[in-house]
Formats: sequence, C-alpha cells, structure tokens
Amino acid sequence: MATVNFTEEQEALILKSWAVMKKDAADLGLKFFLKIFEISPSSTQQFSFLRNSTVPLNKNSKLKSHSMAVFVMTCEAAAQLRKTGKITVRETTLQKLGSVHYNAGVFDAQFEVTRFALFETIKEAVPDMWNEEMKNAWGIAYDQLVLAIKAEMKPSS
Amino acid sequence: MATVNFTEEQEALILKSWAVMKKDAADLGLKFFLKIFEISPSSTQQFSFLRNSTVPLNKNSKLKSHSMAVFVMTCEAAAQLRKTGKITVRETTLQKLGSVHYNAGVFDAQFEVTRFALFETIKEAVPDMWNEEMKNAWGIAYDQLVLAIKAEMKPSS
Repeated sequence: MATVNFTEEQEALILKSWAVMKKDAADLGLKFFLKIFEISPSSTQQFSFLRNSTVPLNKNSKLKSHSMAVFVMTCEAAAQLRKTGKITVRETTLQKLGSVHYNAGVFDAQFEVTRFALFETIKEAVPDMWNEEMKNAWGIAYDQLVLAIKAEMKPSS
Repeated sequence: MATVNFTEEQEALILKSWAVMKKDAADLGLKFFLKIFEISPSSTQQFSFLRNSTVPLNKNSKLKSHSMAVFVMTCEAAAQLRKTGKITVRETTLQKLGSVHYNAGVFDAQFEVTRFALFETIKEAVPDMWNEEMKNAWGIAYDQLVLAIKAEMKPSS
C-alpha cells in the first residue's frame, strides 16, 4: 500500500485530541459503539456476544471491553500513522482484523456508519478542539485503517 | 397487513410536530437527506440525479424537490396512520415506491440510517417537543412505512 500523505499538522490534531480522550477510552469506546447501534440496530447481530444476550447494551461487559479495545486500536493507529507511514495495530494483526470483518460480512455502508459514529464520539469528547481540520485528519486516518482491513478481507487460509 | 396499533396520544405527537414542521418542509426535507448522506456518502450513488452531478448536494435542485416530496410523504403517512389504520401515500403508490427501492437495491441498514436521520431532523426542528414518546411515535410510523414499502419490493411485473 502506498505511503499515506498525512501532514505534521494533521498528526498534531490527532495527538492533541487522543491525549485528552485516552484517559476516558473505556467510556468513549462504549459511546462509540452505542452510537453505531443507535444508527444501525441490526448490526448488533454481527457480534456473537450480542446476538443472544439479554443484557442491555450499555451494561454488557463484553461489549465494554470490546469497544474499548477497538477505540484504542483505532486511535493508536491514527496517532502512529505519520511516524510509521502505514496502519499499525497492536495485540492483533491486520490479517486477523480482515478475517473477522470478512466472516461477519461487514459491508461498505457499515464502515461509513462507523466513520460517522467515530466523528460524533470525538466531537462530543473534545468539543472545544473539534473543527473541520480535525475531522479531516481523523477521516484520513480512519479511511486508511478501513483500507488496510479491507485489503485483508478474504476467507482465512 | 394487520391494522396498526397506534394510540391517540401517539397520533397527537405526530400531528403536533408535523404542524410546526410543515411550513419548513423544503428545508427540513433537504436537511433530512443531507444527514443521510453525511452518515452514508455512498448512498448518493443510488440516486440517478446525483450519480453524475457535479453540483454540491445542498445546491442540487433535483435533490431539493425530491427531498421535500419524500419528507412530506413520510410525515403525511404518519399523520394519517391512526385515521386510516394503514400507510397511505399521495401522488404515488406503494407499488411504485416498492419498485423504486427494489431497483435501487436499498438494503435494511439503509432504512435504519434513514430512520436515524429522520429522528435527528425532527429533533432539530422541534427541540422543545422532542422526547422519548415522540421519538417512539415517529419510530412506529416510520417502521410501518418501511414495512409497506418492503412488502412491494419486487421486480415490477
């Protein structure tokens, strides 16, 4: 994949907002996922730990830990994007992420809903920082992450 | 289709909010569609008059008239739901709506995004009226409209 064109200014916007959000990553991660499910309730069915659960979403401990992990991974990948020139993920691999999303049958419109939910989450977390430039920086980073995942969306060999 | 269980109180909430929104139907309709496209940019591709257009969405006169027509139809169908006991549409038929949505390949997640965008539009239009009961009333009416459209989503004969 081509190296990403991501400016120092854009990196600074990511780092500045992530520095504030980091300490609330558990809450913000859950808000992020609750926003996705508010917009698209049926997407809960793609999560094994939600499919047959009777626990309310905001009390579901598996959702909480999953949400935090995804939110942290997304933000860290964005924070490292300029330094590394590509998407890097911790505690998993892009192959694994691709395979998980492939098996769940995630489609383009869902990546779009998730992008919107991420913006809303960050906007609510750092309302005084949020502006078009910051949205654009997060958008570029998110799109790179999605491209990297999609490149690995195929049956696991 | 079974007659809808829609209380007088729910009807009153629809009528009260629609009475206020009606005079701004053009603006609100456009906001409604811009919200859908903000969440899911790729869905513009399902509209023939947007696919090859270079005009910004908020300046597109075809989108404006289409948005208003859809918004008015949605709200009027909701306003008449209790009286008629079923979804009624003007200036078109449910068969035609079903066929248009079938041909465009509209899928469930898009009906969900549209539901969320409708809520956001009404919430912004009548913030002092908006509450869980009103959301619920609009949600029931919207779901009935979608059910009626889906029942007709098949190739035109």
